[in-house]
Amino acid sequence: MEFEPIGLIRTPFNSREDMPIQSRAASGIKGTVEILDKYKEGLADLSGFSHIYLIYFFHRSEGYKLKVKPFLEDELRGLFATRAPNRPNMIGLSIVKLTETKDNTLRIENCDMLDGTPLLDIKPYVPDFEKPESVRIGWLEGKSGRAEEHRSDGRFK
Amino acid sequence: MEFEPIGLIRTPFNSREDMPIQSRAASGIKGTVEILDKYKEGLADLSGFSHIYLIYFFHRSEGYKLKVKPFLEDELRGLFATRAPNRPNMIGLSIVKLTETKDNTLRIENCDMLDGTPLLDIKPYVPDFEKPESVRIGWLEGKSGRAEEHRSDGRFK
Repeated sequence: MEFEPIGLIRTPFNSREDMPIQSRAASGIKGTVEILDKYKEGLADLSGFSHIYLIYFFHRSEGYKLKVKPFLEDELRGLFATRAPNRPNMIGLSIVKLTETKDNTLRIENCDMLDGTPLLDIKPYVPDFEKPESVRIGWLEGKSGRAEEHRSDGRFK
Repeated sequence: MEFEPIGLIRTPFNSREDMPIQSRAASGIKGTVEILDKYKEGLADLSGFSHIYLIYFFHRSEGYKLKVKPFLEDELRGLFATRAPNRPNMIGLSIVKLTETKDNTLRIENCDMLDGTPLLDIKPYVPDFEKPESVRIGWLEGKSGRAEEHRSDGRFK
């Protein structure tokens, strides 16, 4: 399957060192999304949404391991039970706040991705579509709330 | 960018006709995810999570339009403000309930995708990472809750 970028994500982060580890931990960190001109028409009506999913390519990731030591954890965990950026398919997913849509540029907040990240898709965030009930979070129990205190480091290359 | 399936999603749906339009509307609909043997080790620790994101390929979608008439709506809307399955990059995203993990097979519920859908990635669903506040949902205001009453049809080929 071949995919092509529909745009580029610009953020303040040039390196994984000291980057927030989830968008929840990136509160207020601003960035922009520049959509290719040919897709501009598809941005109509997006400004009504306060939050959007960005699906993007982890362009700086090379290789992966099936057991990793994720942020917030000291033990090896199965890769698919983590959000680690080195995966068989290097696909990232973040919910960001959409603050402005102007021409082919989106202003966003809560950026937790590297500058220059190629964007693959945008989807509206709709709580009615997504709110699971009775959620359990496995190894992240008691840890996920600490994402805000943590920063990324060089563990994933 | 080239991606390869890490597995296959099996669901009761062979056609878009009469399929639920969001996982929220697919409550209790069962399916399985068969992961390729070589990725099995990466499923460790996943069983602790009650819900997971599936990122997959809309393998039956051909072509796209930048303005579409989505489900729940009678007006044309910008493609990226919808979840329509025909997109520049045919990437789908669903949150499903994980009921069992055994060897390389996941039993899931709340399936809203077609049988035989190629799986690209699995990520754990972690409410602490994702809960945006003060959400606005644009053209879907007053409509998104009705996803459960609606079924898919042949509008997207």
